[in-house]
Amino acid sequence: MPTAVMATSAMQACIDACNACLQACEECYTACFNEADVQARTRCIQLCRDSADICALASQYMSRNSEFAKQICGICATICDACATECAKFQDAHCQRCAEACRRCADECRRMAA
Amino acid sequence: MPTAVMATSAMQACIDACNACLQACEECYTACFNEADVQARTRCIQLCRDSADICALASQYMSRNSEFAKQICGICATICDACATECAKFQDAHCQRCAEACRRCADECRRMAA
Amino acid sequence: MPTAVMATSAMQACIDACNACLQACEECYTACFNEADVQARTRCIQLCRDSADICALASQYMSRNSEFAKQICGICATICDACATECAKFQDAHCQRCAEACRRCADECRRMAA
Amino acid sequence: MPTAVMATSAMQACIDACNACLQACEECYTACFNEADVQARTRCIQLCRDSADICALASQYMSRNSEFAKQICGICATICDACATECAKFQDAHCQRCAEACRRCADECRRMAA
Repeated sequence: MPTAVMATSAMQACIDACNACLQACEECYTACFNEADVQARTRCIQLCRDSADICALASQYMSRNSEFAKQICGICATICDACATECAKFQDAHCQRCAEACRRCADECRRMAA
Repeated sequence: MPTAVMATSAMQACIDACNACLQACEECYTACFNEADVQARTRCIQLCRDSADICALASQYMSRNSEFAKQICGICATICDACATECAKFQDAHCQRCAEACRRCADECRRMAA
Repeated sequence: MPTAVMATSAMQACIDACNACLQACEECYTACFNEADVQARTRCIQLCRDSADICALASQYMSRNSEFAKQICGICATICDACATECAKFQDAHCQRCAEACRRCADECRRMAA
Repeated sequence: MPTAVMATSAMQACIDACNACLQACEECYTACFNEADVQARTRCIQLCRDSADICALASQYMSRNSEFAKQICGICATICDACATECAKFQDAHCQRCAEACRRCADECRRMAA
């Protein structure tokens, strides 16, 4: 059962990475709609959304020290990895930023899940 | 229609306040269950949850520059105000921290909603 | 403070409408990406997402009888109205179904919010 | 990449089970706060929340036919199982209803995840 805690520094790093990734994904999501080649970015947009949603959930589960925080972080890592790989294909700044934020978040989430 | 943007500094301040508030609310939520007087904290716990949930949503709507971000921030301010008032009644550190984070978030959200 | 209840029939109708709307919006969201004129559907896709997200939240706030359920329903009605208006512009089946689900949800949410 | 679909009947059964579970969990969450032995119900309340949140997410991922829907359903099954086991310990109607809804949801989610 979760007990009263403030986030440890490892958990805080992961929460921060999730929050940063959530924001980068949401920004990339909106920015992609304004690129000329939207059609080519469908999977990128969809993964940005999936990633933002699970990052938000992971941030909440960790902050409340849920007994399932690690497992949510595990799947968050998987989704962020996929989003990073897809975003990395596009050269614009928002996709590159998003890919980087996703990679960092996936790394932190893997550490938490371990 | 949302256009490609990165968050302005005003919006960034509000996103950061929402993320901080979300975390403080989730921590207070879990910590309250470990206090001897849980029964007296029912509304505090429930408001911490309502507040965390709307902060998470506000953070996402703002980050993607949704056309409804302001309106979500408006109701976020209302819920955070209620949570701040309730948390302020309890003297422990997590409630006081949460009340403070809620107040700051409500202020930033009101500014965004204006 | 929320007290123990099961949903009243009015609230149940609204919860059901939110769940149906959430699903129609998510289906329309994905289906729009597969239409030839994605670029023309940007706002439709974005509103489907905003609408699905607030419907999910409204469904949760009502189910737990939150003291802020009415206010969440109020903004849910506003967002669903906007989504209905946008979706109604497109003649394909998924947009028409989504527009209809959004309209019904907005009506139920307005009733709850009153 | 997700393609335009309406939910198959297997997926629809799972979406419906998630929605029903979400509602039963939220109702049980609120009802538990009104029982005399709140302190004994801490884990029950916390699991109801964790379960409601992941059910809401699973419902959305499936409805939009996300490529990660199965994996979200997998963890949803795990969390709902834990919630069912905990709720089943309490004899009141809302806990028994919630345990039953969680069991059904876990079964459907396992089928989806397979």
